[in-house]
Amino acid sequence: MRRLLVANRGEIAVRIIRAARDLGISTVAVHSTADAEAPHVRLADAAVEIGPPQATKSYLVVDAILEAARSSGADAVHPGYGFLSERAAFAAAVTDAGLTFVGPDAAVIEEMGDKVRARQVARAAGVPTVPGTEDGVDDVAAAVAAAADIGYPVMLKAAAGGGGRGIRVVADEAELRSGFPAASAEAASAFGDGRMYLERFVRRARHVEVQVLGDGDDVVHLFERECSLQRRRQKMVEEATAPGIDADVRAAMTDAAVRLSREVGYRSAGTVEFLVDDDADESSDQRFFFIEMNTRIQVEHPTTELVTGVDLVAEQLRIATGEPLRLRQDDVTARGSAVEFRICAEDPDRDFLPAPGKVGRVSLPGGPWVRVDTWLEPDSQVSPFYDSLLAKVVVWGEDRETALRRSRRALAEFAVDGVATTAGMFTELLDEPWLQAGDFHTGTLEGWLGRRRAAADQGGHGS
Amino acid sequence: MRRLLVANRGEIAVRIIRAARDLGISTVAVHSTADAEAPHVRLADAAVEIGPPQATKSYLVVDAILEAARSSGADAVHPGYGFLSERAAFAAAVTDAGLTFVGPDAAVIEEMGDKVRARQVARAAGVPTVPGTEDGVDDVAAAVAAAADIGYPVMLKAAAGGGGRGIRVVADEAELRSGFPAASAEAASAFGDGRMYLERFVRRARHVEVQVLGDGDDVVHLFERECSLQRRRQKMVEEATAPGIDADVRAAMTDAAVRLSREVGYRSAGTVEFLVDDDADESSDQRFFFIEMNTRIQVEHPTTELVTGVDLVAEQLRIATGEPLRLRQDDVTARGSAVEFRICAEDPDRDFLPAPGKVGRVSLPGGPWVRVDTWLEPDSQVSPFYDSLLAKVVVWGEDRETALRRSRRALAEFAVDGVATTAGMFTELLDEPWLQAGDFHTGTLEGWLGRRRAAADQGGHGS
Repeated sequence: MRRLLVANRGEIAVRIIRAARDLGISTVAVHSTADAEAPHVRLADAAVEIGPPQATKSYLVVDAILEAARSSGADAVHPGYGFLSERAAFAAAVTDAGLTFVGPDAAVIEEMGDKVRARQVARAAGVPTVPGTEDGVDDVAAAVAAAADIGYPVMLKAAAGGGGRGIRVVADEAELRSGFPAASAEAASAFGDGRMYLERFVRRARHVEVQVLGDGDDVVHLFERECSLQRRRQKMVEEATAPGIDADVRAAMTDAAVRLSREVGYRSAGTVEFLVDDDADESSDQRFFFIEMNTRIQVEHPTTELVTGVDLVAEQLRIATGEPLRLRQDDVTARGSAVEFRICAEDPDRDFLPAPGKVGRVSLPGGPWVRVDTWLEPDSQVSPFYDSLLAKVVVWGEDRETALRRSRRALAEFAVDGVATTAGMFTELLDEPWLQAGDFHTGTLEGWLGRRRAAADQGGHGS
Repeated sequence: MRRLLVANRGEIAVRIIRAARDLGISTVAVHSTADAEAPHVRLADAAVEIGPPQATKSYLVVDAILEAARSSGADAVHPGYGFLSERAAFAAAVTDAGLTFVGPDAAVIEEMGDKVRARQVARAAGVPTVPGTEDGVDDVAAAVAAAADIGYPVMLKAAAGGGGRGIRVVADEAELRSGFPAASAEAASAFGDGRMYLERFVRRARHVEVQVLGDGDDVVHLFERECSLQRRRQKMVEEATAPGIDADVRAAMTDAAVRLSREVGYRSAGTVEFLVDDDADESSDQRFFFIEMNTRIQVEHPTTELVTGVDLVAEQLRIATGEPLRLRQDDVTARGSAVEFRICAEDPDRDFLPAPGKVGRVSLPGGPWVRVDTWLEPDSQVSPFYDSLLAKVVVWGEDRETALRRSRRALAEFAVDGVATTAGMFTELLDEPWLQAGDFHTGTLEGWLGRRRAAADQGGHGS
């Protein structure tokens, strides 16, 4: 690999360019007209404009990116995350153009992108999936029989539905018998299909994911990340490693992630996402379930880098050139604790309304064990066309308590004029005893945000 | 400790304030009138102006600092490095004022500050010192007898001299016999005292130092740093751990540092400096010699922090409150390699002429494993009154090669308008095969700088 085209923008484009430069690989940036002055353009050795601000006319246009690679003499393409990173057709097109795709084979992207096939792969690898029906069920008797296998509480989902519509949870057989007909009728009227999926409902679920690296032959894991702090399924704070996970669950989960990745001959960096059932009995063999695999580098990868000392993007580049894995499982050790805060140009006091605009002064946190991955500079323009992520503040500590204390200091040093950000809200979050104790699940942050808003509303009425 | 006064300025004041904030300790900055707008003033919870720009009228005025502590309600004082940090009288005055001094006892500072007593302590602890005469020698016969004990080559130093004046090296007895009378006569005429010290001359010496932490009872080491890259005895680039040191030398040297620190009941962070003789036979028991102990935090401490994960300043603060050491020797492990570049406002093309002035744009390196300890901001004023250190760029890698490659990228990202800096020179230095191989000693950098200047002069003639 001599020249890498980075098919992305923002902080991840900067991150990838740095990794390439560290390895002596020259870089090509692509950019929309809105990003002509962006740091990823300036840091790269060459830059190609690929279209207007709308991603569908630039960052998502496969032909424009391939043409940019051709004209700039790039021999490899890194997709980053988002945009084209999990489109099998893009990976295939890059390879067909005679270029190296930095990621897994197109066939693996496709297989893991299909949730039903991904579940089948997981089961074939002996990895537990959330118990549920494979096909739609259309009458009460069949639903009751299925639920007896699955175990209550059970979630009913319209087979033809999506986006969370038509979901209801039933606690026992009586609720199922009384609720199924109405749910099925609603689904029939909404989607023209009354069949329902049934799935185990996990009340207190943690979202925990395992980082893997594979070279097509061998796979190693780099421990796990805790990603339960979400709003509308968007992660806001992530940690490596996960607090509150028993050693045997950790061992079984990392082992499962490696087995699943081996099953598909995984090549590159990938993440196997699990749901951990906090209510499960300690003796249960159903304490965690496979959700899905992300076949790309993830936003929260720096937390794993800080505890393991492994440069995941550099390893992606090495593996893409055909190098075998340099790490054996025994070489991978976790030291201390790392936490990432996604600082977005959104107003947490206005329901996270995006806050694009022109930035003035920028003051970023610094000093020991504080890493800021960002594209932000003084006078940057925050565009309404792209996601609102301004910076990832990633903090390491010799233990979790130290990392959280240091995070408070680092977030206090973060100052940006001109746009609203989520940084201040995170400093409030750090005061919460449940956060400090690591005692939370996927619903906890939304609950806290709701209480925070209610308190603000009440305060507003009183003034 | 509730409120810490930081009796320093610049990057180390910022560093100490951050460590204190991480531990929930409030901070008081002191500053000269020239530093009213400095970052350490803004980051601290309170600030006290202590005098005009000249350090002798502000940062070196003990009474002004004690008065600032009293008026601001500080209960502890951290001296940083330089300024008052190694003045036993300052430590004593702080303690006498009923405040906690963050450092060793005044008596230990005094003992280690006296080079003759420090050598005696070292020998009492079984730590090798550079062989030499304890007292001045005033005739050839005595010099020849002493040199036979010391071993050739021998360095002759005027007993009453200083600052490197009157030093000459003799290779054997014949040179000593012929050279001694003239050297002694020169010393007599220059200093009014013809007596000479004799000391083993180490041709190819490395400067290697061991970081220790002690609590008054126990002492642990945190491995060593390589600090041979010096110009006029000023370190410019430092590494942790040291390349090119045999495992048995490392073990013996770290052990010696711990023994010496135990001998004086050392409390706080300290550094034991050694000279390593690269020409010594592998079987020799004289492969390294104690030079001196620095009883303070050092400029290059971040390299040790990055490989060990230990926050040395936080440990200083904990120890100062009377906490016992939290680390046992077995807990201290070194991962990877770290290198520090001291970026100074000096012009390497004009014999390192200091380049004070007003800074314009500032662009600091970032991303994974790049730490920048700095006080620099856009529009900062670089004062002629203080040392010229702008920033320490400290880079970690999973191995030395990775750290050096990443350093090249990080230094390339460093950009400051308005003042000359040493950053660009370091990128040239990174191209040198001897640097990449770790094959250098204390004279190597000066030699390289001389060749660099000669080449520039020649280039100048040609154009």
